[in-house]
Formats: sequence, C-alpha cells, structure tokens
Amino acid sequence: FDLPRTLIPEDLEILEKKMAEIIKANLEIKPEKLSKKKALEFLKKIKQPYKIELLKELSDKEVCFFRQGDFVDLCAGPHVKRTGEIKAFKLTKIAGAYWRGDEKNKMLQRIYGTAFYSQKELQKFLKLKEEAKKRDHKVLGKELEIFLISEKIGKGLPILLPKGRIIRGEILKYERELEKEIGFDYVWTPHIAKVDIYKKTGHFAHYKDMMFKPFGVEKEQYVLRPMNCPHHYMVYENKRRSYKDLPLRIAEDGTVYRFEKSGELQGLVRVRALTIDDSHIFVTPEQIEKEYLKNVSLIKKMFLSFNLKSYRVRLSTWDPKDKKKYVADGKVWEKAEKALKKVLEDLKIIYEVGIGEAAFYGPKLDFLVEDALGREWQMSTLQLDFFIAEKLNLVYIDQKGKEKNPVIIHRGLTGSIERTIALLIEHFGGAFPLWLAPVQVIVLNVGKAHEKYALEVKEELAANNIRSEVDSENKTLGRKIRDAEMQKIPYILVVGDKEVKSKSVAVRKLKKGDLGSRKLNAFIKFLLEEIENKV
Amino acid sequence: FDLPRTLIPEDLEILEKKMAEIIKANLEIKPEKLSKKKALEFLKKIKQPYKIELLKELSDKEVCFFRQGDFVDLCAGPHVKRTGEIKAFKLTKIAGAYWRGDEKNKMLQRIYGTAFYSQKELQKFLKLKEEAKKRDHKVLGKELEIFLISEKIGKGLPILLPKGRIIRGEILKYERELEKEIGFDYVWTPHIAKVDIYKKTGHFAHYKDMMFKPFGVEKEQYVLRPMNCPHHYMVYENKRRSYKDLPLRIAEDGTVYRFEKSGELQGLVRVRALTIDDSHIFVTPEQIEKEYLKNVSLIKKMFLSFNLKSYRVRLSTWDPKDKKKYVADGKVWEKAEKALKKVLEDLKIIYEVGIGEAAFYGPKLDFLVEDALGREWQMSTLQLDFFIAEKLNLVYIDQKGKEKNPVIIHRGLTGSIERTIALLIEHFGGAFPLWLAPVQVIVLNVGKAHEKYALEVKEELAANNIRSEVDSENKTLGRKIRDAEMQKIPYILVVGDKEVKSKSVAVRKLKKGDLGSRKLNAFIKFLLEEIENKV
Repeated sequence: FDLPRTLIPEDLEILEKKMAEIIKANLEIKPEKLSKKKALEFLKKIKQPYKIELLKELSDKEVCFFRQGDFVDLCAGPHVKRTGEIKAFKLTKIAGAYWRGDEKNKMLQRIYGTAFYSQKELQKFLKLKEEAKKRDHKVLGKELEIFLISEKIGKGLPILLPKGRIIRGEILKYERELEKEIGFDYVWTPHIAKVDIYKKTGHFAHYKDMMFKPFGVEKEQYVLRPMNCPHHYMVYENKRRSYKDLPLRIAEDGTVYRFEKSGELQGLVRVRALTIDDSHIFVTPEQIEKEYLKNVSLIKKMFLSFNLKSYRVRLSTWDPKDKKKYVADGKVWEKAEKALKKVLEDLKIIYEVGIGEAAFYGPKLDFLVEDALGREWQMSTLQLDFFIAEKLNLVYIDQKGKEKNPVIIHRGLTGSIERTIALLIEHFGGAFPLWLAPVQVIVLNVGKAHEKYALEVKEELAANNIRSEVDSENKTLGRKIRDAEMQKIPYILVVGDKEVKSKSVAVRKLKKGDLGSRKLNAFIKFLLEEIENKV
Repeated sequence: FDLPRTLIPEDLEILEKKMAEIIKANLEIKPEKLSKKKALEFLKKIKQPYKIELLKELSDKEVCFFRQGDFVDLCAGPHVKRTGEIKAFKLTKIAGAYWRGDEKNKMLQRIYGTAFYSQKELQKFLKLKEEAKKRDHKVLGKELEIFLISEKIGKGLPILLPKGRIIRGEILKYERELEKEIGFDYVWTPHIAKVDIYKKTGHFAHYKDMMFKPFGVEKEQYVLRPMNCPHHYMVYENKRRSYKDLPLRIAEDGTVYRFEKSGELQGLVRVRALTIDDSHIFVTPEQIEKEYLKNVSLIKKMFLSFNLKSYRVRLSTWDPKDKKKYVADGKVWEKAEKALKKVLEDLKIIYEVGIGEAAFYGPKLDFLVEDALGREWQMSTLQLDFFIAEKLNLVYIDQKGKEKNPVIIHRGLTGSIERTIALLIEHFGGAFPLWLAPVQVIVLNVGKAHEKYALEVKEELAANNIRSEVDSENKTLGRKIRDAEMQKIPYILVVGDKEVKSKSVAVRKLKKGDLGSRKLNAFIKFLLEEIENKV
C-alpha cells in the first residue's frame, strides 16, 4: 500500500476490527471481466497508478476484477466466494517493501496476515509460530554460545564455539559408537582436490553451480570439494580388493564446501561449509539388502537417541516407463528396489514411493524426521550407485577370479552435522538431554565458605568425565539459579553448610525443580547412567 | 662428466680402487693462479669445453686452478692439502644431470661420494643412511598402509588411510588428555576466510608466497587459510572478556593449507595440507611465566610418551642493538625473555639463545627433538605475540575496569600432525608402541578348528577397546607369523587346541619372540596397562 503515513502495530488492531465487520457482513466476492481498454479507463477513474502499470504489461484482451461491496480491484484471483467463509484470521506483521522489489522504486507498505477455517487452527498456528521463534537456533545459538558467524571470516562459514564443539564431538562420538556394531574404516582426507577429478566423475557437469570457483596451483586447477566421494574412491582403489573384503565401509566426518547465494544463507541450516557424517559402502549386488538392513536399523536407533520419535522415509525409484533416463538394466533396478522395500517393511517403517525421483545412477532412501513442533527435517540418506564404480573402473575380484564393479552406497547418517545441531537446538529448545548438554551440571555455592567444596564437587565430576561449572560469583542464590536456568543447564547442585558436612548436593533438575538432597557419589552414579542411557 | 657411455654401479668399484691408489700416493693438491687469457689457452689445449663456458662468465682477471699429479682443473677450491688426508671414503650413487641443470642442455653424469677422517665415522654414516632408508616414512607409510598421496586428488595432499587415521586419532586423543590438566576450550572453524582478514593481520604481506591463490565468491575474495589465528581471534572477540577469564586457551586441531613448490613436496613432511594441534592462549603480561611453565611441562611429558628422550630448545630473542625492528618497548621484551629463561632453567631444559632471531612481535621457544637415528626434527613452538591484540583491538577489562590488550601465545604442540606421523614412523621404524599401533594384536588360529575361538578372542579384545585382527587364511602358521611381523603388529596371539581348552593365548611379542602362554583375561589386563603407560 502507498499510504500517507507509516503504519504502526496499533493500526493492525483497527484494521482487524474493520475486517471483522466485513466478514460479518458476509459480502459476496464477485469476479468481473472487462476489456483491457475499459479496465484502463476504470483504473484511471479510481486513481490506481500501480495497477495501471501492471495492467499495461498484461497481454490479455480481457482482464479480471473482483468486487466486494464497494471495493473493486484488478486481481486474477482466486478468492473465497463470500467474506463470511473466513472463520479465523490474524494480521501478523507490517513491513516496508519497494514497489516490485526494486530499490529504485518507491517504498510501499506491506501487511502480513493469515487465515484459517477455525479459531482453533489459528490458535495452534500462532502458538507454533511463537514457540518456533523462541526455539530459533540462530537466537539460541547466540544466547547459549553454541556458534558464531563472523562477517570478517565470511558468510555462511559457521564457527563452533567451545559449547558447539562439544555438541559436535558428542554427536560424532555417539555415531562412532553406533557404527562399531557394523564396522567402518575411518579415513582423513583433505578438503580440496583437482578440478579434473570432478570432471571425470561427472560432478562438475551436474554440480558446478554448487561449487566454489577453482584456483590455480602451479599449472593445475584446484577447487574446494563439494563432496567426499572422490577422496574415498582413491582409498578404495589404493589396494587390490577381493569379494572377501566386501562390504567395505570407508567413512569420514568430512567437511565440504558448497556455494549458496548469500541471500539464502541461514544460521547453521543453509551454510557454505558443512561436515558430513559420510560413508561410501562398497558391496556386491547380493549384499545390498543386508547392508541396507544394517544401516537403516542404525539410523532408526540414532533417531531415538536424539529423541526424534516420528519420521518417515521416501523411497525414490526409477520410472520403468522412461528407461533411457537410467543406467544399469531394468532387472537390476527392480531387484534393488524390491530389496529396499523389503528392508523397510521388515523394519515396519512408514514410507512413500517417489516413482521417477531416483537419480540416474540408482534408487535411494531419504529419512525425514519430525521435530517437537511437528516440522519436518531431511536427515539421513542411503543412496545406491550402479554407475560410478564402472565409470572410474573401481573393481573387486569375484569368487571366479574375475574383475567386477562393486555397487556403492552413499550414506549420510545425519547428513550435515551443522544442520543437525540446528535441528537439535530447535527440537530441544536449547535444553539438551544430559549426554549432549555442553555444560551438564552447575555447582552453586550458597556462600563464600562453601566455594572450596563446590570446587571439590566440580573436580570429582571432572574425574568422572562429567562437564561442569561452578558459579561462585558474588550473587544471591536465587540469581544464580535463574542464570543457570537461562543457560538451560540440566542439573543445578546447590551446596551450603549441610551439603559440605554430609558430602552431598542439593539437586535441582531443569524444568522439574527440586529433587532433594543426594550423596555426591550416588548422584554421580545416577548422572553416569542418565548419560549412558541418552534420555 | 661427459662420458662415452653410461656408468653402471660396478664402475664405482673400479673408480674407488683408482681413488685408493691416489690417496696412497699422497699427492699434493696445489693451487695455481693464471690470467684469464692464459687459462683460456690452457683449457682449449686440454679440450674442456664446459670449463671454457664457465671461464668466459667469470669477471675476475686471475682464475684459480688446482693441480694434483698430472691432473689440473679450473676450480675455486678449497681442497685438502694432500690426498693422503682422506682416511675413509665411499662412492654412493650415479645419476644423470643436465649441464647447468637446464633440460635443454646435454645430459651429463654425476657421481656422488662422501669422505670422512676415519673408517669408523664412514661406517657410522653408511649404517645410519641404510637404517634411514629402511625407516623412510614414504616407504613404510605405503607398506603399512598409513597414508596415500594420489595424483588424481593432488600433490602434497595426503590421504590418511584407516591405519593412519587411527594414529592421528590416538595422537589427538592423547593430547586432549594431557591438556585436561591445564584446561583448553576447543572450537571448530572452517578452512577458508576472506582475504581481507589476512590483510588486516599483516599475514598477507609477510606470508603471501605460502598462501594459495584467492578465489571469488559473489563480490568477495576468499582464500584457503594458511593458519588458524584469525578464526580463533573471532572466538575471543565474540564476548566481553575480563581479567578473570584469562588465561583463555582456545584450541583446535585445525587444518591449514600452504603452498609449497611441487618439487619440494615430500611424503608427510612437506605437504600442502596439514593439521596443526594449535592453541592461542590469551594472557595478561603477569601470567606469561606461569603459562609457559605449564605448557613447557606438558610438552616435556608429551615427548616422553612418544619415546623421544632427547631434545633441545632454541630461545629466539630480540636484538637490543636493533630496537627499531621490534614492537613493544625494551622493558617488556627483557622481562618476557627473563621469564622464559627462568622457565627453562627451572625445568632443567638445555637451551640455546638466538639473539635477534625473534619475530618482530615477540620472543619464542622452539623445541627440536632427536629421533632414534639422532636426526633433529622441529616440533613444538611457543611464541609470544605483543602485537596482534593491539592491532586487532582484542581487549580484556582489567581489575581497574580499564581495557587492556592481552598478550597472545601461539602454541603448536607437535606442530603438524602429518609431520609428527612421519617422525614417529621413522623414529619407531614402523614398529609403533602399543598405544599408537593401528593394529595392536593379531590372532592366528593354528587350524580351521580354532577359527571360532580366534574370533571370540578378537571380540573380547574389541570389548576392551583393543584393536585386533584375525588371520584365518589358509596359510602355515610360520607364514602367518612372518606376515604379522612384516606388518609390525606388537603382539601375535597363536591359538590351537591347548589354548581353546584353557581359554588362553600363546603370546609372541614383536622383536622379543615367544612370551609363553597366558590366560586371555590376564593378558588383556596386561595389554590395557601397557596401553595406559604408553611404553
């Protein structure tokens, strides 16, 4: 809107009142067609220069207006039939906006609103929005000192602060622990490579827009890697591989660099540097089903440890009607897809099939988890690749002594660690479960006399690998507790005369309150169990 | 030499015999001066076109020849007085070499040799050389599958294979354990940054030749980071810091990228991608001495765990006669240097002083360790920086509420992890101590009937976090033992009828041989102690 003055939040209430009247009047919203010429005359009459500008650009002979009581507007629609259909609405925001998004034009005003079929739905939406705002990982990430993005270092390049690095470390440590059951070989590889290798794999052709610009080193061109695959292929081909070596699982928490437009960067969710909990699993065709079973079970287990109880799977298959789009013959695809479906059914996992959504090189499973607010996040992926081993001549010797190409499974466990940290911050609203919490326990001494014991408690906790802090600042106990709760530290231990004497601690649990007094040793045992159980 | 045929190794023996005769003759080696004109005539007479070419480029009026019996040669010297002075010599290698190093010139032949004052010294040198060759980390790194450098990924970009990644992990885990005593805050930061930040810190001006070429991202220029410092400074300045927060120790195993000419790259020692066990320690001037004491003690302890028993320290100080070269005033330098000397003396560490060898921003300590062959490797460094905090306006609030610039200590614990792996491979000749060995134990079953028990032993070892393999291939026991010894695995456990029955293992230790039979549980306890003690 082009208005004589800038709107203020209070204006929204006035507007909402007016809207309520219009809804109550249950006016009809009627489309009317006019010839372009007549439309122009009409818009001139009612003095609508912006609409005139839009109209002039339309190539249609007839254009559409909508009438609602006295109000008539050039509009393609659609609209509800009558204003009474709106059962619940809310104006949510005022913002300035350049006409047609061009900063050379006049700044107009935009009003944001939303509407629902019931008051209940609107309330649910507003509550969710408010809750999401409170849990925003960009806000909490700053308040809880988890990460930092510095313009001096660069856009989209998150720096994990000490607390963020602890969360990263705990996630990776837990994943390594999980993976022990299956057996992975970890490697360490550099973050750059010759451009040529990406040309050879075909990534450069398909993926160039997501890659950073190459730079010259002596007579060669290098580039920040957008994925870890080629580095892992080099590890595979470094040695003669036999069928007895398969499945061979090369894994790495490998940092990759992807170009995203600066306007699209967002906290830890859309970044230019991300670490993938990556693996390339080399299997024979016969091993696909069993390998998927193992990895899907592992992923299922992981979600539970992150308290992500609801998720679904998208199985992207080929389109048998469009065979030319895919490598490998139909039998291979059908067999693989059947195996993947069997795995999902065996594990009683809800899935949907996206026919024709597979990449040209093989079908895949993507895992979409639901967070505490019911929002979906894409996490794990298990992607079959029938193509690249042949392309790069990666082979193993089969039982008959013949060279064969392995099938490769590209596995992302959470996908990006950065994105997972964002998800977990928002899912838990910053109140991490004990095993993930950067500071697990804070010790508060009631008075100066109890500081020594507070430090002893901290030392005892440290000896048991429990991360703790002491707040011995000159503040009231109430203030100390509030500060600790602001930092969302899972356990607060208060120590005064009684605790010093009995070698105990007065325990407060975040969101639960007072748990009473416990002997220190018993409480440490209790903490270690909670950490072990990841609850 | 420009010879009618290519030399073969057998020629060296013939030449050595001739050399022995010349030495025995004890000929005088006499300098003779000739005018340039006479020299030219002489060289033409004895048909020495290469020497004529050299002579023509000399601007001296008189040039020097050396005469030894019948042989006369244009040569600046110096030489021994008589051939008899040579007590021991050896011709070591033949190689082709372009005249004047230019591939457009003719290929000549070069003979390498070495000489000593005694046969004993020569023997020692030759033995050392042979031993060094056997321990070459490039050869062992390949044989033991520790690392790989792939031309397809790029020169100087080592890929750590699974066994290399284990060694890397153990080194870092141990360092983190050591650092617990002092207290470090770990961060994770990306491997690139805007070029501007390096211009601001002054690195770009001093360090540009070691940096890779920048690349554009939208309208900004980015570059692979050559060091972690700026990233860590951003962590420091992210928060208001008080004197109570100091010393603040920001640490990271941070990978950096440095340009080295391809001709100078060498295994893991000269690389283009390296991970530094880095820390930036922010202190008040009063804290310097205590902080050095803590960190030097830690470094001393670390060397011992790596079985590096001999090392020395170089203290690089300012030059008080050339004050203009340095920032900060003389009192600050003198106080700091005195403190560093005191630390070294308190810890009874041998050190030498390099006057004027400090960087302009502060004095430093470098640690040079001696490996098993007596060769020196530069490792740890502790560098004071009086400059950068002021330059970047990094501050803390002192006790009087005033803003002060902290002093920064740049600390490299081993320096580069890659270089350390190279050093350790060569120092141990690939036979790593138990705690560092990628495979700690191998289980060999005597016959097929014992394979099940061998796998049980492996499982039991894994449950105790001991890394083991089973060799159940169809080979003789002798062959299995030889293969395991080639892989330099610290412990070989043989299991046959007797061991299955008594739940025991027959133990062989690398280089020590048979240790007899042990109950499995008792032996695991013994292994865990050896790992813990890092011997």
